[in-house]
Amino acid sequence: MPILNKDMTLCISLAARPSNNGTLFHNHLYDQLGLNWIYKAFAPTDLAQAVSGIRGLGIRGAAVSMPYKEAVIPMLDQLAPSAAAIDSVNTIVNDGGILTAHNTDYSAVLQLLGLHEVSPSLPTVVRGSGGMAKAVVAALAHSGFGDVVVVARNESAGRNLAETYGFTWKREVADGGQLLVNVTPIGMAGGNESNMLPFSLDQVEAAQVVFDVVAVPAETPLIRAARAAGKRVVTGTDVATLQAVEQFVLYTGITPTAGQIHAAREFMLASAQTA
Amino acid sequence: MPILNKDMTLCISLAARPSNNGTLFHNHLYDQLGLNWIYKAFAPTDLAQAVSGIRGLGIRGAAVSMPYKEAVIPMLDQLAPSAAAIDSVNTIVNDGGILTAHNTDYSAVLQLLGLHEVSPSLPTVVRGSGGMAKAVVAALAHSGFGDVVVVARNESAGRNLAETYGFTWKREVADGGQLLVNVTPIGMAGGNESNMLPFSLDQVEAAQVVFDVVAVPAETPLIRAARAAGKRVVTGTDVATLQAVEQFVLYTGITPTAGQIHAAREFMLASAQTA
Repeated sequence: MPILNKDMTLCISLAARPSNNGTLFHNHLYDQLGLNWIYKAFAPTDLAQAVSGIRGLGIRGAAVSMPYKEAVIPMLDQLAPSAAAIDSVNTIVNDGGILTAHNTDYSAVLQLLGLHEVSPSLPTVVRGSGGMAKAVVAALAHSGFGDVVVVARNESAGRNLAETYGFTWKREVADGGQLLVNVTPIGMAGGNESNMLPFSLDQVEAAQVVFDVVAVPAETPLIRAARAAGKRVVTGTDVATLQAVEQFVLYTGITPTAGQIHAAREFMLASAQTA
Repeated sequence: MPILNKDMTLCISLAARPSNNGTLFHNHLYDQLGLNWIYKAFAPTDLAQAVSGIRGLGIRGAAVSMPYKEAVIPMLDQLAPSAAAIDSVNTIVNDGGILTAHNTDYSAVLQLLGLHEVSPSLPTVVRGSGGMAKAVVAALAHSGFGDVVVVARNESAGRNLAETYGFTWKREVADGGQLLVNVTPIGMAGGNESNMLPFSLDQVEAAQVVFDVVAVPAETPLIRAARAAGKRVVTGTDVATLQAVEQFVLYTGITPTAGQIHAAREFMLASAQTA
């Protein structure tokens, strides 16, 4: 790390319960690229005052996490297409006091569906109806997927999300998806469902592609089951890394190389394990 | 330096033209003491929004420099005695959203007069009438000095400052001080009077104590002349270091050792020279 100095450009994150991932990942890229930048997570005490601070202190960018992704919208100046697509913000870019909202979760999922050549003709089952499910379902719809079932215990959230895009809501897990997407915390380390699968093994066996948004652990029970069954997988770490890279590009204007991204990702994962 | 992480406590500075000193000094002390803290200077684009950011982001402390030392007062919640003494703020401490103003320039000068056992009976000449002169003249008055002449080209500022404390204003340098205090930029590196003396050599020769508030270079022409004449000196680096230590104590609650302070000061001076 460089010696901290007055001229460093600051980027931050705003979350009620910040993870350490952004701080580790972005600072490692700054270091590799020799940028005089620093990144630091914050748990704001007051969102509006924190956003004022972004303007007043000239903070270059801010990641936005739960529970601020929608509440922050009226405090910003304009929405980029990625944020307008789902009325949800996970990234703020400050250009001389003008704050522009982006959503790199949405654009990362959109890109990953393309990169992994997931055919939009696949019947799809999405489990979950929270903020990240909104990004996933919108990205599916905007990628041309037509046969999508949203499975969610919360009827109003699930039905609303599904019907926004002309999809179907179901309370219980639906059979038959060729693309299975988990956007619940099932399988997440530290949760009380960390050893569980969001889809049955039979359903995994019958699918073509399995997409898990859970990023910790990197290999969730669902991803491990899908790999064991020889399925194509898209992991939560893929999403987390790609969305962070997009933030990095938005903030700095620099596209890091694949090797630099890999090094920052390994650093983040190694530090997370030892923490 | 530790790996940057989400849990670090942030302290900042607010100045139109920040120096690197605070960033170097405070971060070096954090590092020596193993504190998970970082310090970063800012040139705010909007003072009120920057102060909102201190509250909203939970920034622990902020140094305040020109031109914000008086303008910031209505934005804060309470004045500690050091700031109330001169209606000027150089330090903000944030306790859970309650912002308290301090002035560690004032309290550092007050302490240095005592540490150096400068007798308040000495006839004193102060040159300057800016923000720092206010701190110096108030500290002299509150230390019991009675015979003080304030020399300033700006009549309204100089007369107002002097008369606030029952002292005398003069436009041209007055003879006869036993304590000489320079609070102008004369002798400051990079200025257009960097090789000049604020007091004549005859006057230095006739004085007992010479106090220069200019901190860069550490040995100003005035301090060098005073040392050459065998006079007791108080330097701008003494003021800058002590006021920064007081900020550190206010922010962290920890009093660093003399050795730690010396190491941080040497680091700051060495880095400033190589910059």
